[in-house]
Amino acid sequence: MDRATAIDEAKRLVDRSRFVMVGSTGEQGYPNIKAMFRLEHEDLTRFFLSTNTSSKRVSQFRSDPRACLYLADFDDFQGLMLIGDMTVRTDAATKQRLWQPGWEIYYPGGATDPDYCVLEFTARTGNYYHGLENTTFEVQGA
Amino acid sequence: MDRATAIDEAKRLVDRSRFVMVGSTGEQGYPNIKAMFRLEHEDLTRFFLSTNTSSKRVSQFRSDPRACLYLADFDDFQGLMLIGDMTVRTDAATKQRLWQPGWEIYYPGGATDPDYCVLEFTARTGNYYHGLENTTFEVQGA
Repeated sequence: MDRATAIDEAKRLVDRSRFVMVGSTGEQGYPNIKAMFRLEHEDLTRFFLSTNTSSKRVSQFRSDPRACLYLADFDDFQGLMLIGDMTVRTDAATKQRLWQPGWEIYYPGGATDPDYCVLEFTARTGNYYHGLENTTFEVQGA
Repeated sequence: MDRATAIDEAKRLVDRSRFVMVGSTGEQGYPNIKAMFRLEHEDLTRFFLSTNTSSKRVSQFRSDPRACLYLADFDDFQGLMLIGDMTVRTDAATKQRLWQPGWEIYYPGGATDPDYCVLEFTARTGNYYHGLENTTFEVQGA
């Protein structure tokens, strides 16, 4: 599969995915995975997620920003892995911009709750799998 | 949630999951994720998966056996992460035992195809998430 087709299919996979699997490095160097809601994203280059500032993922990414995102369509045997780095954002503007109604159940203090923060993922490379075929590409310019 | 309830719910989540997400450590120490079919498993302690011997995951696990498995029910907000180690099995008995009809499309040589191998995952700890609650447990004896 050529790069343009892979990127096009990957973007459509992202658009219809409610969740992303987030890969981090945890205790004793073991890989960790957690599902999170897909919030805002800019093409394949940047993704925003939210989580508790006190959570394990935040302390993991603060000590090691290396990350991956994985999205899949299990019925159609499609998978997309994006490799990149995660930044923990606690600034008020970013938190306010991404805040969604109903999140009080996760963050009782609302958009300014100190236990609410944003994870900003910047992708470097991608690997798209479909129909037994793997296509690896640089994300920049995708 | 107490340990017994978490383990009980986690086992039922495993039983109804066709796929598992496999976490490994890849190039430059970045976490990697890939979806694989769930084949045989023994409770929460041991899982068998199959892949190409020439694949990236096999070379990753041969150089760093640290692994995790992640299973999720997105509709019910359940997630299970198992942390443990991955062994690459290429012995004929294991390969033969796990071989499934139709796999010739992945491994044209059949059960003795040198490019077919088995990944054996042994879990050490688990983390089960359901209803905003995280329960961490030792897998031994689960």
